[in-house]
Amino acid sequence: MIKVGIVGGTGYTGVELLRILCQHPEVELIAITSRKEAGMPVADMFPSLRRRVHLAFSTPEDAALKDCDVVFFATPNGVAMRQTRELLDAGVKVIDLAADFRIADIAEWTEWYGMEHACPDLVKEAVYGLPEINRAQVKGARLIANPGCYPTAVQLGFLPLVEAGVIDTSWMVADCKSGVSGAGRKVEVSTLFAEASDTFKAYAVPGHRHWPEIRQGLNRMAGFSGDESVGLTFVPHLTPLIRGIHATLYCRLRQDVDVQALYEARYAHEYFVDVLPAKSHPETRGVRASNLCRIAVHRPRGGDTVVVLSVIDNLVKGAAGQAVQNMNLLFGLAENLGLTQLPVSP
Amino acid sequence: MIKVGIVGGTGYTGVELLRILCQHPEVELIAITSRKEAGMPVADMFPSLRRRVHLAFSTPEDAALKDCDVVFFATPNGVAMRQTRELLDAGVKVIDLAADFRIADIAEWTEWYGMEHACPDLVKEAVYGLPEINRAQVKGARLIANPGCYPTAVQLGFLPLVEAGVIDTSWMVADCKSGVSGAGRKVEVSTLFAEASDTFKAYAVPGHRHWPEIRQGLNRMAGFSGDESVGLTFVPHLTPLIRGIHATLYCRLRQDVDVQALYEARYAHEYFVDVLPAKSHPETRGVRASNLCRIAVHRPRGGDTVVVLSVIDNLVKGAAGQAVQNMNLLFGLAENLGLTQLPVSP
Amino acid sequence: MIKVGIVGGTGYTGVELLRILCQHPEVELIAITSRKEAGMPVADMFPSLRRRVHLAFSTPEDAALKDCDVVFFATPNGVAMRQTRELLDAGVKVIDLAADFRIADIAEWTEWYGMEHACPDLVKEAVYGLPEINRAQVKGARLIANPGCYPTAVQLGFLPLVEAGVIDTSWMVADCKSGVSGAGRKVEVSTLFAEASDTFKAYAVPGHRHWPEIRQGLNRMAGFSGDESVGLTFVPHLTPLIRGIHATLYCRLRQDVDVQALYEARYAHEYFVDVLPAKSHPETRGVRASNLCRIAVHRPRGGDTVVVLSVIDNLVKGAAGQAVQNMNLLFGLAENLGLTQLPVSP
Amino acid sequence: MIKVGIVGGTGYTGVELLRILCQHPEVELIAITSRKEAGMPVADMFPSLRRRVHLAFSTPEDAALKDCDVVFFATPNGVAMRQTRELLDAGVKVIDLAADFRIADIAEWTEWYGMEHACPDLVKEAVYGLPEINRAQVKGARLIANPGCYPTAVQLGFLPLVEAGVIDTSWMVADCKSGVSGAGRKVEVSTLFAEASDTFKAYAVPGHRHWPEIRQGLNRMAGFSGDESVGLTFVPHLTPLIRGIHATLYCRLRQDVDVQALYEARYAHEYFVDVLPAKSHPETRGVRASNLCRIAVHRPRGGDTVVVLSVIDNLVKGAAGQAVQNMNLLFGLAENLGLTQLPVSP
Repeated sequence: MIKVGIVGGTGYTGVELLRILCQHPEVELIAITSRKEAGMPVADMFPSLRRRVHLAFSTPEDAALKDCDVVFFATPNGVAMRQTRELLDAGVKVIDLAADFRIADIAEWTEWYGMEHACPDLVKEAVYGLPEINRAQVKGARLIANPGCYPTAVQLGFLPLVEAGVIDTSWMVADCKSGVSGAGRKVEVSTLFAEASDTFKAYAVPGHRHWPEIRQGLNRMAGFSGDESVGLTFVPHLTPLIRGIHATLYCRLRQDVDVQALYEARYAHEYFVDVLPAKSHPETRGVRASNLCRIAVHRPRGGDTVVVLSVIDNLVKGAAGQAVQNMNLLFGLAENLGLTQLPVSP
Repeated sequence: MIKVGIVGGTGYTGVELLRILCQHPEVELIAITSRKEAGMPVADMFPSLRRRVHLAFSTPEDAALKDCDVVFFATPNGVAMRQTRELLDAGVKVIDLAADFRIADIAEWTEWYGMEHACPDLVKEAVYGLPEINRAQVKGARLIANPGCYPTAVQLGFLPLVEAGVIDTSWMVADCKSGVSGAGRKVEVSTLFAEASDTFKAYAVPGHRHWPEIRQGLNRMAGFSGDESVGLTFVPHLTPLIRGIHATLYCRLRQDVDVQALYEARYAHEYFVDVLPAKSHPETRGVRASNLCRIAVHRPRGGDTVVVLSVIDNLVKGAAGQAVQNMNLLFGLAENLGLTQLPVSP
Repeated sequence: MIKVGIVGGTGYTGVELLRILCQHPEVELIAITSRKEAGMPVADMFPSLRRRVHLAFSTPEDAALKDCDVVFFATPNGVAMRQTRELLDAGVKVIDLAADFRIADIAEWTEWYGMEHACPDLVKEAVYGLPEINRAQVKGARLIANPGCYPTAVQLGFLPLVEAGVIDTSWMVADCKSGVSGAGRKVEVSTLFAEASDTFKAYAVPGHRHWPEIRQGLNRMAGFSGDESVGLTFVPHLTPLIRGIHATLYCRLRQDVDVQALYEARYAHEYFVDVLPAKSHPETRGVRASNLCRIAVHRPRGGDTVVVLSVIDNLVKGAAGQAVQNMNLLFGLAENLGLTQLPVSP
Repeated sequence: MIKVGIVGGTGYTGVELLRILCQHPEVELIAITSRKEAGMPVADMFPSLRRRVHLAFSTPEDAALKDCDVVFFATPNGVAMRQTRELLDAGVKVIDLAADFRIADIAEWTEWYGMEHACPDLVKEAVYGLPEINRAQVKGARLIANPGCYPTAVQLGFLPLVEAGVIDTSWMVADCKSGVSGAGRKVEVSTLFAEASDTFKAYAVPGHRHWPEIRQGLNRMAGFSGDESVGLTFVPHLTPLIRGIHATLYCRLRQDVDVQALYEARYAHEYFVDVLPAKSHPETRGVRASNLCRIAVHRPRGGDTVVVLSVIDNLVKGAAGQAVQNMNLLFGLAENLGLTQLPVSP
């Protein structure tokens, strides 16, 4: 059994990690920390876990995190980077679900996240945990930067085209729509039910932190380095779903190619990526509560514009599920262990 | 492995049965029938099942139902009663998720369902499959009448009080709220998104088919027979949820009693019934996609009125999950086998 | 033109007042106060009001409230009672949308609202502004206690039966469901979209502040005084709507009566109360954004139990609309002036 | 008073027309036809109209449509084109809310709508009723082709850029999201609440009927003719709203320009188009139940990509409201008469 600790378990990513991990056959939950809620049984905050999760929140000090085999950080940005070195030194593997280790360029990270980085050397060591791209590196890592939700949907959506070098990477559009749980469990007027229900809006059009993360990923796929970069426009929207991300991706082919065959071939052996038949339209509910990404690829009227539709559950493949997928790889387990639950639909 | 057939799998009860059964470790899905959709892969209709359910719909004739160990009817009312005898004669157990075998009084059934009954003798044999009440009888049965969704929530909510004989059974109120999936997957203007979203309404106040079913159940609990009957007012409402039933139950104590202790004792050994601590308020999402019923019991301001709050997922404990719970009992399996998935929340 | 001031306009009641008042032909908006947002244009907070409401929030000091003809308080409980006397002394009429003047029994008010009352004498003077009951008193008042949302729906629902003296008032059940805007625009985890969407729950079953308000109203209708009181059980629920209250009311007849005729007669001349034909089921969307209350009355299976269905928009007839209805009466205008907009449906 | 008839009033466009027209000070509703529902009071089908719309549906034969001043067709495609000539000949003006007269190229219309056109000559006469572009022509017309919902949002969004000739029209992307009422009130599995709620999907990516309509409009703005055409990719999505369209538009500047100033200048005198301040994000609820279009324009990180956000209520500015705006122009009334109601928010 893998001894697991969770730092910061009071948000949606935390409760989703708990839901998945406590049904995982090789996991023993050791501790879950929340300084603010220390002493409170987890199931009092999340009644859906009653009678299955018997832990209480503990302070980071009381939680014997160094005795764990792996620690997940489900914390706000900037927390994991202060605690990771000590854990790694104690032989504990770390999976950060926040953004502390996602951006290799420290200056760029600082610009977007508005703080100094506490351990640039560990950023260099960290592996970006998108297994469909980085599986081999993940397996040998100590420290995983778990990707953001939008970046997961967008990168998996563009991957076959960029890897194959068949599109004009100088203009790529990612029009993305997220359910409201993506904003987290923190209280804000804008995510109140009466504000976010029965309405639709874009946000952060001038700039969103997932833009540099996606661009970095696309550049790596394209083999770009230095000043070379894809041209990416990324617009996130808030839509009245609890869970789910739908990425609608636009780009232009530079050469004729059978895009359907390209996608099917690229993902033929990926358990968690499902390429739909031609002319399909995936729905977010078709992946609800599962670790799947479903993708359809179109060339409207046979033109050179490609439209890719990519859906994930932002809390699973976009966060907690992908983190457990990475954990499975870190510990040599079957990659889909504990992650085979079917989507809940309707 | 138990060989399972499903008759009529194109509705929400059908897809939910498939979701549960194809993750059940002792089940082999043999056939799923739909005359109308014969030949169509199930996963084409329900993309959430892609790559996991490989069956196609077949005609009842082509489906070797008699080779199954058990057949579930997820059909409209009036279908199972015409096919059950042949299956029972062939040694196949039958679990009917519709209402054909729920009401013992044939005249009453006819009045509410508007058709002649095809096999009154089998109604007599059928066991009403609410395991928390009828576990022993279920275990030895050939034919299970799987309870309705409202009746499950209401009966489990009232059960401890009625069994204990502590309330005035001459007036009991069940004010129930259901998600829209309870209306099924058939097309009707009233359940269109633009009609059923962002609105709330009662329906069928003059009379609903679940009223005689609930009343029959309460009468049995109370030990009533002949003309004796509880006095039950039942009002169902439609609320903008996909899944979930919330029953708010009102009755009056005839004697002072510790209702919290009464409920905890009655359900102490029930895996699927969770009595919340005093002063709690269960939410439907706290049982979403699970086979649980969560109950809280109140005496506002310490008076003699009892308010019981009982929630289930109408598609699981209110239909497909309870049917599988009954199947487990019929075949001597652990009652919760394949039914331990945690609720999905948020 | 009536000069109108609003104190505390940053909540849903405030924005709804603005929506109604700025379309009212006899109203001139003079000031809207918010100490916290002073200086901010109202339309920056509420973009739906852009180009129509040109006011900015001002501090209470800067707002020339004493120059107004009427001031609405759309503030938290406990604010209006500290500012009302000064306004009344200046000849300004006051309509309080909060609860400061609703409960005549000061001790009871203190118990439920947890503070000392600043002006018990004004409570005595205040008129409870439910025009369908108190129209005459409203017309001559200086100070209006605008009713709560649940109390409006419940009182209008029970009124004909209680006034006629035909029911057993010792047990009355009000099972009420509210949209989430009823919780206000303040930030709380429980009203986040991801918490309140696709779920249903009761709350405050042990006790809710609207219980004494409703009970007081029913007692007045019944002519009770002293220790005599109706027996009322009130259970509120949160349902995933933005706007809308649905009250389902249960009581027992003590004598046979044509309830349909009783309701039609009682409300024959009420512009804002619409009694539906027998066997109807009103929906909350059927009154959305309007000042209407729609009511249906049932006797299931002809028994002695009466079930009343009463729906309002909690922000309109349950708050801002009723306040404007009261204003119209106070100033001798047509009662429905500025309040005739049709419901928005779908 | 203008005598108005409506043909086909049982859908959402019909009920919205009724809501608007029966509050319009210069309109007298003469007849509303539905062969199927002839004899049924309109308010029995649409209870939100109770006590305000007293008409019953009538057969087209019984409805004295030729005595009307104007007839609105709120019918499926292909109906208006068979009845329009007779009405025009009788001196009745016609506003078609369906697509019969929207596409000038008859061959293209036939291809997309799958039927022969009954009156190509009238297509030539018809004026495309987007007043912000065609106001002068609308005023003198007999026959108005009321624009589609997506085309309204997209054309108003792109208009200033295309008219000014500052963008590369060879690639323009319109990623559009619609509430479910856009699919109409017809029964289909895909628009059931339990299918369309809490999920998000694209549809019709291979081709949607609004694509040629939008392209035609953009070509006219650009001054293109013959084989010259803009390059437009249009992807519609279904989002869990009742009402609302959000168009997110992408294109590239060919020259540097102050886009904010460009939009503000173009729409400075348009009552129904509201250009938000720079860096804004309009929401669909900010136009709910109103005839407004709100637009924001962005250049992310100051690049040459322009992102335009354009929102309307699909049933108002996208259908019934725009039709009444056209009616006002046809009859020389103030363009906004009866259309000044504020958005309903929250």
